[in-house]
Amino acid sequence: MKKIFDFSLYLVTDQPACQGRNLLEVIRESVRGGVSAVQLREKQLGAREFVDLARRVKTLLEETPVPLIINDRVDVALSAGADGVHLGQDDLHPRDARRLLGFDPVIGLSVNTLEQVREGERLEVDYFGAGPVFPTSTKKDHKSPLGLEGLAAMGKAADKPLIAIGSVSLDTCPDILQTGVDGVAVVSAICSAFSPEQAARRFRTCLSAFRAEKDSHIT
Amino acid sequence: MKKIFDFSLYLVTDQPACQGRNLLEVIRESVRGGVSAVQLREKQLGAREFVDLARRVKTLLEETPVPLIINDRVDVALSAGADGVHLGQDDLHPRDARRLLGFDPVIGLSVNTLEQVREGERLEVDYFGAGPVFPTSTKKDHKSPLGLEGLAAMGKAADKPLIAIGSVSLDTCPDILQTGVDGVAVVSAICSAFSPEQAARRFRTCLSAFRAEKDSHIT
Repeated sequence: MKKIFDFSLYLVTDQPACQGRNLLEVIRESVRGGVSAVQLREKQLGAREFVDLARRVKTLLEETPVPLIINDRVDVALSAGADGVHLGQDDLHPRDARRLLGFDPVIGLSVNTLEQVREGERLEVDYFGAGPVFPTSTKKDHKSPLGLEGLAAMGKAADKPLIAIGSVSLDTCPDILQTGVDGVAVVSAICSAFSPEQAARRFRTCLSAFRAEKDSHIT
Repeated sequence: MKKIFDFSLYLVTDQPACQGRNLLEVIRESVRGGVSAVQLREKQLGAREFVDLARRVKTLLEETPVPLIINDRVDVALSAGADGVHLGQDDLHPRDARRLLGFDPVIGLSVNTLEQVREGERLEVDYFGAGPVFPTSTKKDHKSPLGLEGLAAMGKAADKPLIAIGSVSLDTCPDILQTGVDGVAVVSAICSAFSPEQAARRFRTCLSAFRAEKDSHIT
């Protein structure tokens, strides 16, 4: 059965951003602080090490509702029994990934334009990762930042959950949530924090505060 | 049913080595010249482009007995309907690859030590790619070259077909075949040749001459 996961506070790993700390420890702390989903993005690892790492993270997350998502490599996700994959526009086509994964696993898709959102709506994709919101240093691509207005427009165009990614920090989090996105994906603001647990907790507080504010506007 | 393929003259692609020529054209010519197997090794491509390329090569090879093998990416091989994968020691573990691929597709494994040959013999692997025989420029790894003696020792230790790779040229081909290997994998000596077809034909002649010589020794 297809599980419903919570992508509202989505940790995307980046080993260099962990500044020498053990990645598993950073993940454990972040989850304790309130991270609701984890994506392993480890472009520098060979597939064998990537599978080994993914299995260790899977074990770590076993007793939690937090899903493990693998960036790019569907074969790694399948081998490690991960909950899904996150695909960029240059990665395996979601159609091919869905055929290999079957119905249940999550497929996330990176989107950087409204056209990509519209196309993604027609595919068997479970959520969008929209970004970068602001210029970012952790992912070396050359996509133009969306800005808050661009992000808001994408959120409106998307029926599927849309998660903001790219330079999401505690400072920018409130403005990003104002655009109406369903969650934030965080890299360095958690991985490089002195305390990943505390950083995650602060993001969680920001998300809760925003929801409370939204609810008070409705009533 | 598991097909038996001929890996005696195994083209391993390298787009930069094609020097601007169309890779499909280089493959078409090589096959016309006698290449018996093709491996796509395209580390620089995103998975989506890799699948597209693999599908085009698959179509090209459709009417031939030449198998299409994909380097590293099991998900790409499955999506493109390739005949198998070739795995390095850092790639997906052959056990994981076999589980994803099922019984039929070919799995090749790179080996650089006798220990790796012995371990590979215990795995569901169909052939070994042993190398580099001599120092090589097309693959930027830091494995020590086996030399002809090292290659001969590996050939003796292997029950499965063992294909030599790494600086195989028309000059070195006869000496390499003398070591008792079952075939040669060729990169630049075909991809960079003025006529890939003619280069492949010359390798084929070298293989035939060696077999004739071997047969005459037996009688």
